[in-house]
Amino acid sequence: MPAPLTLQQLGAATREAFTALLEGTYEHSPWIAAKAWEARPFSTLAALKHALVTAVREGGREAQLALIRAHPELAGKAMVAGTLTAESTHEQGRAGLAQCTPGEFARIQQLNAAYNARFGFPFILAVRGPRGEGLSRQQIIAAFERRLCNPPDFEFAEALRNIHRIAEIRLAEKFGEAPALGNQVWDWAEQLAAHSEPPWSERGELTVTYLSDAHRAVAQRLAHWMRAECGFDEVGIDAVGNVVGVYHGQDRDARRLMTGSHYDTVRNAGKYDGRLGILVAMACVRELARAGRRLPFGIEVIGFAEEEGQRYKATFLGSGALVGEFDPAWLEQQDADGITMRAAMEHAGLCVADIGRLARDPSRYLGFIEVHIEQGPVLNALDLPLGIVTSINGGARFQGEIVGMASHAGTTPMGQRRDAAAAAAELVLFMERRGAAAPDLVATVGMLEVPGASTNVVPGRCRFSLDIRATTDAVRDACLRDVLAELDALCARRGVSHRVDETMRVPAAPSDPAWQARWEQAVQQLGLPLHRMPSGAGHDAMKMHARLPQAMLFVRGENAGISHNPLESSTSHDTELAVQAMQRLIDQLATEMP
Amino acid sequence: MPAPLTLQQLGAATREAFTALLEGTYEHSPWIAAKAWEARPFSTLAALKHALVTAVREGGREAQLALIRAHPELAGKAMVAGTLTAESTHEQGRAGLAQCTPGEFARIQQLNAAYNARFGFPFILAVRGPRGEGLSRQQIIAAFERRLCNPPDFEFAEALRNIHRIAEIRLAEKFGEAPALGNQVWDWAEQLAAHSEPPWSERGELTVTYLSDAHRAVAQRLAHWMRAECGFDEVGIDAVGNVVGVYHGQDRDARRLMTGSHYDTVRNAGKYDGRLGILVAMACVRELARAGRRLPFGIEVIGFAEEEGQRYKATFLGSGALVGEFDPAWLEQQDADGITMRAAMEHAGLCVADIGRLARDPSRYLGFIEVHIEQGPVLNALDLPLGIVTSINGGARFQGEIVGMASHAGTTPMGQRRDAAAAAAELVLFMERRGAAAPDLVATVGMLEVPGASTNVVPGRCRFSLDIRATTDAVRDACLRDVLAELDALCARRGVSHRVDETMRVPAAPSDPAWQARWEQAVQQLGLPLHRMPSGAGHDAMKMHARLPQAMLFVRGENAGISHNPLESSTSHDTELAVQAMQRLIDQLATEMP
Repeated sequence: MPAPLTLQQLGAATREAFTALLEGTYEHSPWIAAKAWEARPFSTLAALKHALVTAVREGGREAQLALIRAHPELAGKAMVAGTLTAESTHEQGRAGLAQCTPGEFARIQQLNAAYNARFGFPFILAVRGPRGEGLSRQQIIAAFERRLCNPPDFEFAEALRNIHRIAEIRLAEKFGEAPALGNQVWDWAEQLAAHSEPPWSERGELTVTYLSDAHRAVAQRLAHWMRAECGFDEVGIDAVGNVVGVYHGQDRDARRLMTGSHYDTVRNAGKYDGRLGILVAMACVRELARAGRRLPFGIEVIGFAEEEGQRYKATFLGSGALVGEFDPAWLEQQDADGITMRAAMEHAGLCVADIGRLARDPSRYLGFIEVHIEQGPVLNALDLPLGIVTSINGGARFQGEIVGMASHAGTTPMGQRRDAAAAAAELVLFMERRGAAAPDLVATVGMLEVPGASTNVVPGRCRFSLDIRATTDAVRDACLRDVLAELDALCARRGVSHRVDETMRVPAAPSDPAWQARWEQAVQQLGLPLHRMPSGAGHDAMKMHARLPQAMLFVRGENAGISHNPLESSTSHDTELAVQAMQRLIDQLATEMP
Repeated sequence: MPAPLTLQQLGAATREAFTALLEGTYEHSPWIAAKAWEARPFSTLAALKHALVTAVREGGREAQLALIRAHPELAGKAMVAGTLTAESTHEQGRAGLAQCTPGEFARIQQLNAAYNARFGFPFILAVRGPRGEGLSRQQIIAAFERRLCNPPDFEFAEALRNIHRIAEIRLAEKFGEAPALGNQVWDWAEQLAAHSEPPWSERGELTVTYLSDAHRAVAQRLAHWMRAECGFDEVGIDAVGNVVGVYHGQDRDARRLMTGSHYDTVRNAGKYDGRLGILVAMACVRELARAGRRLPFGIEVIGFAEEEGQRYKATFLGSGALVGEFDPAWLEQQDADGITMRAAMEHAGLCVADIGRLARDPSRYLGFIEVHIEQGPVLNALDLPLGIVTSINGGARFQGEIVGMASHAGTTPMGQRRDAAAAAAELVLFMERRGAAAPDLVATVGMLEVPGASTNVVPGRCRFSLDIRATTDAVRDACLRDVLAELDALCARRGVSHRVDETMRVPAAPSDPAWQARWEQAVQQLGLPLHRMPSGAGHDAMKMHARLPQAMLFVRGENAGISHNPLESSTSHDTELAVQAMQRLIDQLATEMP
């Protein structure tokens, strides 16, 4: 075992020595390190990785394809893996591929053939997985099957991303650096995911809705970790179920930095949406407590009880209560089983009468920060682990229907039709064009359906949804006006009618400039480039915005950033960077205080 | 009671006298008769009605609106009907409106107000109905509710159509002419509709699928009527369940004219689709038999047992067997209850072994003609009772799916989407444009659905159907090529994939010119203008086309020609014209024979 590599060594190396030191990081492709050398010196390992990634990004498609083709096929059995490098053999073996059943082996061969035929390059998967401990054979085969259906250009990029992940793990071993904090956060998230509601839990899927048994278990576990593992000074569960942990400053009455996110989930959810923002903050406090370090400010970490609006028709119950926006009328809402929110809260032992007292006094807080998995493809596509949120987009949602006249598809001449689906198709394409016409605006028709449709019937009805979000309310509303005007116009032109019902409207929440700047400084200190972006999804910070200055940090999601889905994934290297960024922010904040 | 009006009287009248004779035909609008006078003389009552209709059509929108507004509101109670003309009061009273319950009265007032607010003119309904005997109050209120949802320009035309229907009934009374043959056909259709399968029959809906109890009852009733009421010489039910009635010519072995249509139905069907073509032919034979008239040719009327493909995955079982296209493999097909076609046939007492012998020898037949309700809006919109079919369109059907990538509607920038619904929207609009680009071509996306859709998810999948029909196979196939090429191109451009599976393809069946000419001559003899049109739907004639020259006559359908729906409707005046047209064709054919 050679001595671990250091950044100093690399910084001092000639291009040739540098390339030699990094040999094997990228399969048979020394040109990558040779190119990255030009960006030396590297203040952090993250900066080095970014330089390597950038070299590949700028290498051009031909070099990228050669890099992909330099990789062996997924072997299935070590004995047929003659083409594997020692690294690859080791990695694939660690993933248990050497113990394939004959059926699995046959399936992998089949998939290899289909994949090669479809894409023209071998299937590359970072088999060590997001925690570096190896994927199961079932996970590998499932990823293979899933990726076989990707569009070719997307899969090309996905292959490169897997290569970068393989390189990241190899570099960690070269440098003898394990992402200890990231692993802790990742493991906590895994442990929390053990709690799920039946019948989802029976299928191995994750669902934790407001005040279910699983939800209450998660709250208890978070409270327990805060108290027993992280050294918080005060830990409690408040009247709406928020888990609240306080780590005092040097002065118990010092103003506090508030941070956190939600611990409830959608149905069949991922493990990081919400929870990551609680766990990252817990890791930071744990490190402070272990170091016995007290700051000029307190830290209040909130595990918000409810954000997703799955059980009741109300969202942001947790953060809403903290800004005085908990509507008592919600207490009488019933869930699908007829259980009122009040009954559910009483069943959980919450003090419903205290909800009104949860609202925070802004003068006692410095601000609110939140770390969240991106839930989008932007950072993943850019090969960047962290992103700076500039604003949480304002959104508006609608359910609509166009009503034309159903008629026989064979006997109704084109000129005599009142085709509701064709009218809806115009709307879909207008939404797409209009959404693309302004930066940081998105316009989506997610639901589109001809109810009771038949092949041989001209659609008489077509239902649709509209979802429009933008960095500012003005941009969103301008888009909405144009869309509704176009809908009126096209329906009039086609002699069809429509109705559109608004189901949701939330204002945009721009990040506070000073807090956004603190996140930016923290990310730069990690040796990473800044990427500023809006948050397309709503978050607790959007609610806290009503009372506190706020800013968010986004963490890259794997698998094109998919969320609200079991494929949601984050590597422990990325969660490590998230913890480090929050630590830097806290340090920075401490230096600002008198 | 004045003496009935005659066409001679009208033909000899001055414009003023003519207008006076027709007073009250159109409510407070003598200008219509005054205009129609210019088209005198009228060889038939149908020709007079057409002249009146034409006067209104050419009168311009303002005069049409004045005509509509000259009508009273639907009264609900005779006592509030101060504005009603004597005619209107009589008609509305006959429809039972004078006996409204208070609830019905209130509902009608409510509907009147809503209708006026929406359209700006009073609701006009020919309350005497398609048979002239009056609609029930429930039927009137249902029609009112339904029409309230029509697009305004369509409802304007529908109001005029109801005015023409009111005028038609008033004219029939002025002339003392009842459509006796049409009433007979209409009544037969009503009696057949008493047979329906549970649970449809329990809901008052009509469903008669192959060899169900109801289906077998309809066959027995048709056979009985042919034998006992119509004077057919030979009547039987063949090995696939076709009801076959033969009326011999002067020579028993004379070649035969074959005609007929199917008696099975779709689920929740109308009463005329198929059956009209059997009953019209039966009425013709009945008149021949009553007159003791024998022709130089025989007439073979077929009630085809199966055309719709509802119970088994095979269509045209009845006509298919007569052209030798019954596939014995179909016998092992199972219905939804697991009953094979063979078992169903044996249960019905059919001689399965004889199916192969059903195929007709073309040399023994002159040709095949078929009368069918249009099942489309063309004749209804043109105010024409009959249409000449030029070709039964060739069709092709497909089920398809576009696969993009589902992603978060808030977090996926417009430029990074693989929106399957937006891709499908492009396809829908291309189909529409391409369908409109050639005459007598129709292209329809009837099914359109994002499966498992959510408002906040960019569609990853979108399912659709394609249905393309044209007068010739070449036109259809050119459209199909363009559509599939466009689908390839747009999917490539958008980085999404697709699959398209063909589910049906049938060749076009152009009408035989000589037989089409006979229908044309017959329609002209009735004093009606010719309107040539393709058949967008498939019919038994399409199958018979394989062995016999064929041509079809279309009968106008009310309610925009809606079919496969309980709203399918034909007036007894129109069915009378269909019988008369077939009688003319038969007469013409007799004169052609040596």
